[in-house]
Formats: sequence, C-alpha cells, structure tokens
Amino acid sequence: MKISINRKAHFNAAHRLHKEGYSDEENLKVFGKCSNPLYHGHNYELIVTVSGEIDPETGFVMNLDILKKIIKDEVEDYLDHKNLNLEVEEFKKLNPTAENISVVIWNRIRAKLNSKYELKVTLFETPRNFVEYWGD
Amino acid sequence: MKISINRKAHFNAAHRLHKEGYSDEENLKVFGKCSNPLYHGHNYELIVTVSGEIDPETGFVMNLDILKKIIKDEVEDYLDHKNLNLEVEEFKKLNPTAENISVVIWNRIRAKLNSKYELKVTLFETPRNFVEYWGD
Amino acid sequence: MKISINRKAHFNAAHRLHKEGYSDEENLKVFGKCSNPLYHGHNYELIVTVSGEIDPETGFVMNLDILKKIIKDEVEDYLDHKNLNLEVEEFKKLNPTAENISVVIWNRIRAKLNSKYELKVTLFETPRNFVEYWGD
Amino acid sequence: MKISINRKAHFNAAHRLHKEGYSDEENLKVFGKCSNPLYHGHNYELIVTVSGEIDPETGFVMNLDILKKIIKDEVEDYLDHKNLNLEVEEFKKLNPTAENISVVIWNRIRAKLNSKYELKVTLFETPRNFVEYWGD
Amino acid sequence: MKISINRKAHFNAAHRLHKEGYSDEENLKVFGKCSNPLYHGHNYELIVTVSGEIDPETGFVMNLDILKKIIKDEVEDYLDHKNLNLEVEEFKKLNPTAENISVVIWNRIRAKLNSKYELKVTLFETPRNFVEYWGD
Amino acid sequence: MKISINRKAHFNAAHRLHKEGYSDEENLKVFGKCSNPLYHGHNYELIVTVSGEIDPETGFVMNLDILKKIIKDEVEDYLDHKNLNLEVEEFKKLNPTAENISVVIWNRIRAKLNSKYELKVTLFETPRNFVEYWGD
Repeated sequence: MKISINRKAHFNAAHRLHKEGYSDEENLKVFGKCSNPLYHGHNYELIVTVSGEIDPETGFVMNLDILKKIIKDEVEDYLDHKNLNLEVEEFKKLNPTAENISVVIWNRIRAKLNSKYELKVTLFETPRNFVEYWGD
Repeated sequence: MKISINRKAHFNAAHRLHKEGYSDEENLKVFGKCSNPLYHGHNYELIVTVSGEIDPETGFVMNLDILKKIIKDEVEDYLDHKNLNLEVEEFKKLNPTAENISVVIWNRIRAKLNSKYELKVTLFETPRNFVEYWGD
Repeated sequence: MKISINRKAHFNAAHRLHKEGYSDEENLKVFGKCSNPLYHGHNYELIVTVSGEIDPETGFVMNLDILKKIIKDEVEDYLDHKNLNLEVEEFKKLNPTAENISVVIWNRIRAKLNSKYELKVTLFETPRNFVEYWGD
Repeated sequence: MKISINRKAHFNAAHRLHKEGYSDEENLKVFGKCSNPLYHGHNYELIVTVSGEIDPETGFVMNLDILKKIIKDEVEDYLDHKNLNLEVEEFKKLNPTAENISVVIWNRIRAKLNSKYELKVTLFETPRNFVEYWGD
Repeated sequence: MKISINRKAHFNAAHRLHKEGYSDEENLKVFGKCSNPLYHGHNYELIVTVSGEIDPETGFVMNLDILKKIIKDEVEDYLDHKNLNLEVEEFKKLNPTAENISVVIWNRIRAKLNSKYELKVTLFETPRNFVEYWGD
Repeated sequence: MKISINRKAHFNAAHRLHKEGYSDEENLKVFGKCSNPLYHGHNYELIVTVSGEIDPETGFVMNLDILKKIIKDEVEDYLDHKNLNLEVEEFKKLNPTAENISVVIWNRIRAKLNSKYELKVTLFETPRNFVEYWGD
C-alpha cells in the first residue's frame, strides 16, 4: 500500500537565465527576456510530495510538522527573497531554470528526509508554467 | 491505451486526531492542535480519478453521471456535515487523518466501481495540504 | 486618494448552527445539516482589506507585518482549530454563521487597527460561499 | 533522471455529444443535456506535460518558446472559438467527448514534438471535470 | 450595518456575438472570432451577491437554501447546456455578450428576490474575463 | 445603469524596497527581507476594471481587444521581465511597493482610456497579498 502526502509552500526570488561564455546576443536568443542582466523575479509556489506507508500508530505517512520544518529550513529560509544567481551557492555555476531549481530543492529535502520515503517536488515558476521532479 | 477521467466533489466535516491509550499530553505532542477534544473541521475537496479504455461506442471512459451518483452515495451523503469520529462507522476505531479518510473513501468507491477500472483518490484537507491514494 | 491593501489568512474550526429555544425539528428546518448537534467544520479563508492613504515615506498604506501580527493575534490564534460554539466567548450566545463570524472578526481587528484606516473582511466558509462585511 | 515541464493553455469551443444512428431519445439517455442538437460550450483549459532529460547546456528540458509555438499552432489556432462537431476534421465522425478531444490534442502535439520526449495532456472541460492522457 | 453573502454557481452554454444588419465582414471586425456563425462556448462561473441586514433570529442575511433555489430555477435550469442565441428568449434580439448576460441574470434573480435586499452579479465568461453588474 | 468589465493580465519583475537616506539597518527594520539590495521578485497578477454604460449597438461596455492592447502596451511590454528599480522611469525615485506600482499602472492606463470610463486596478504581488486602487 502506497500513499502520498503533499504540502504547499512558497518563496519569492529574483533570477536571470544566461550561459557564461555565450554572447549577449546568444543569451537573448536562447533565454529571451529571461536573460535580462538586471534580473526579474517570480513567486515560486512549491508542492512537496512524500510517499510511503501509513503508520498504523498515528494514521500518518509522516508528521506534517516535521515536513514543514524541513521545507522551512531547506527551501523557504534558504531561497526566499534571495537573488538566486548571486546569493545561492548551488546557482553560482548552475543556470537557475525552473528545472534546475527543482533539482536543487529535491536534493536539499532528500538529504533531510528519512530514506524510507519517496520524494517528488512540483515547482510553479508562474501559475501557467511548472516543473515536476521525482529524483534520479 | 489508458486514459483517466477526474471528477471533483466536496464535503464539510468535523474531526479530531488522537490515539486511544495516549495521555492528553502525548496526544498534544503527536497531533498538536488537531487533538483538540472539542473538534475542529475542514472543507474536504475530493478528486476521484477513474482510468480505463475509451468506449468507442460513446467516447467515454465511463459515464460521468454514474460516477457522480457513486460519489454522492458513498462520499457526500455519507460524510458531509458529519462528525467523523462520532458518526462514521469506519472511524470509530481509526484515526480520521487525511490519509485514513482517503483510504476509507477509496474502499467505498472501489466496492461500487466496475473492476475493469483503476481508481485513485486525491483528498484536500486544506488548500495547502492533500493526500493521494491509489489503493493497495 | 484612497487605496486598499489586502491580506489573506486562514483557520480551521468546528461549529454548528442552531437557535436555543428551537426544537430539534425547527433547527433542522431552518439550519438543515448545519444544525448537526455533533458539529461539522470548515477551512475558513479570510481576506482582510485595509484602506487609507499611501504614506509617502514608505510607499505603504500600512506595514503588512503589523497587519499580519494583528490577524495572527486576533483571528488565527483565537479561532484556529477551535470549536466555535464551545470555546469562543463571542459565540456562547451568538449563532456562528459566516455572517456573525465576519462581524466578530471585524470587531476584533477594528479594535487593534489605527482609526485612520477603513476595514473590510471577506470570509470564505467554503470555496463556493462567502461573506463580505464593511462594519457598521 | 527524468523531469517534466508543464505549460498551461486554453481555448473556447462549442460541441454536442451524440451518436449517429441513435434516436434522439437514446442520445438523451446516454449523453443527457450534452446531446442538445443546438450545441453548448466550454472554456477548455489545457496542461501540456513534456518529460525528458535536462539539457546541461541550457538547464531546460525543452525551450518553452518552442512548446508554446506548437501549442498555439496545433491546439489554440486549430480549436479556439470553433464548433468542434462542424469545423474540426477529427470530429466529423468522432464524438467530441473530453476523452476524445484529449486524444486528438495529444496526437497533434506528438506529431510535432521531438521523439525523445514523453508527452501527457490534461484537459479541463470544466473546473470540476478533467481528463488525463499519456498516449498509447 | 450592511453585509453581503455570496454564492457561486455555474452553467455551460454556446453563443455567438453578432449584430443583425452588419455584414459578415463588419461582424468579424467588431466581434472577432466570437462572431463565428457556427458558435463557440464557455463555462460561465457566476457569483451572486445579496446584501442586507443580519436577521438576529437566525444570524443569516438570507437563508442560502432559498438563494440556491432561485439561482437553480432562474439561471442554471434556464441557461445550462443551452445555445443562448437560439434557445433563450431574452437573446432572440439581444447580443449575448457577457455584459448582456449579466443584466439578464440580474433581472431574473431580482424578480424573485425580496425587495429589501440589494443584488449584484459577477459573471466569469472565462477565468481571465469577467463582468460585474449592480442593477440600474 | 453602471456595469464593469474586468480583464486579467500578468508580468514578472524584480524589485527591492528601500528608502534613500535610510541606513541599511533602518531599511531592514522598515522593509524586512524586501530590502535585500540584490533584489527579489514576483509574478504580478493584474485585474483591470473598466466601468461604464453598455453600448446598445454592440452589447459591450468596451471592446476587450482595445483594452487588451492598452494593457499590453502600457503594462506588460513596459514592466514584464524588468528590474523595476533600475529600468522603470517611474521608480527611479519612487519605492516600488505594490501600492505605488498600482498607482503607476493606473496612471498609465488612465492616460490611454476614454475619459467616459471609470478605472480600477487590482494588483496581486503574491497570491496572498494584493492592492486595489480606484484613482484619485
């Protein structure tokens, strides 16, 4: 028997998309307006999905307070109101696309989550545009 | 070829989370404010997902009117405006967590659904907190 | 020049609707399933609207942190995970309809809010059913 | 490593559900109000999901501008403000149920999408009623 | 003291926008794709707002069951799954724009509503496009 | 008779809140994390409300295509993917709070809108935080 619990969270951040080594023209061609060197930003809305067995003692897959604490420490406190390119270690050399941000968030939560659980993250960059990542 | 149809429904109910045999302090520690002995409640929003083949005669996986009737009988009429702990047979001895409510709903719909279909339920306890269950 | 800022909040609670002095049949007739003596509940979603002038010093009508603190103290901590009928002073003798809950919330916030602001509250009892109150 | 990107789109259209060879009574019995010979309509909301590897050069699974162009050409320009039964080739002999529309959309996008990607479409016929299709 | 209660409802319908006496070209110029002679359609989402005093006996502005019945009779049963141009009396000579549909709905509900209440309707033609009408 | 039409739009931008002349500590105290000198950002969701009479010729208050063009020119093309503090003339000396952004948007649309209409803008800085402005 497998069941998933999901928790929503959110953070606001600035970023730009670009590739070092590309000319400004190449960056504009590949990344469009997202390559603006002066940054733009998003309200990132996150869904964290944890799958496992129901603990018959509590009726929980996992205590949500523990999950909320992990999300707060690893995602909200780490990314909220930040400039992703300049202030977040993982994006010093990694392009902060929605795909790469999802992988970074997945890795950070995975490291704190009991290995008996499966993990998925869904990241909305805008209400019309989102990414799902299940890990490798 | 596999395709899923989804139908939303909803019900409002009161519940409390607690474990018989736990002291009040233990219940508070594990279940937090949800252990309030005088109950609290939620607008539960439900998505019922039925997967199967498209019937070439009708173009339907399943007639939605039949599915709506099952949801009305097995979920809405059974749980709406109820005190889950006191009035619903399944929760007399089972903690009404979102996980356990999802399993109860899945079991009730499964019993009425043609066995050729696969079933999944998604239950929102709040807009920020939801469970997905595919059966065992 | 008048401008409004709005902040969303939420709380979960149990309640029942009934009138003391009514028979069970009368309560059922007037309040329907909402009169269940064993309670049901809702995820109440709240929008607090504060109107005033923009402070040219800050560009704010009001610092949102101050408003969030008032909402937390007067609404969330006071009503969240409560049985409204049994645990909330104002509803000891007042029917906890969405209308009356809105008035109680408005009064509590009004008492803490600088009198130069106008106040409105919007209270969703369910996603399909909500009340707006501007004060008297 | 597998990751999905999702893009929302929408179109408005008229349709009716019916089966040639059925009498009006049979159509009414099977398709209910949806069999109205004078048509009714919907705001169809679409989510297109493309799964693949992250390109380490760009950090993208796929450039969203390319996906948006495919959706515009194959879905929005093709179906928006149309009478599905009378004006869309695929539905001349196929009942335009949400299931069949999903299959048609999936086939049209699949034909334009690099074969290295997996494709899923989610189609909301109403906010309460939606279909998911992963292809055959 | 004035307070508003709001109830959501919905219906699906086909329509076209055009002006009798206009040439096809003129209709296309003014109404764009909405002038398609073969119709298109929408999921109309409606919010009905009723304002008045709280009845101290019940705590209600108005019993929602009565309002739901009026909305069902005057809006849902009357407009759902209809071709507005061909099947609805009011639009035989009136262009079924969102504005005019709102006025028609307002008039129909107003005729059944106790005159002590104020009435407003909000009509979403799409999730991105809506009209508000308070009466004349 | 007065009626309002509403159109949704959106743009993504980076900004920071701060006051020239304040020390870093003062800025942090008043503007919190929003004063980050390296910027953060939002998905701004906008609702533009235009009120007037229904034109009996068309059934429109105003042709939505004209309104969409104004919003595109004055808001989306002007603010989307921009750093509000560094790239937008109006915020060179004005703090880009949600309040001030709303006023700037209102002024820009007002200048292009026929004076017979009334104008309101609603600006969501996040899904939980929004401003309404009716003009002076």
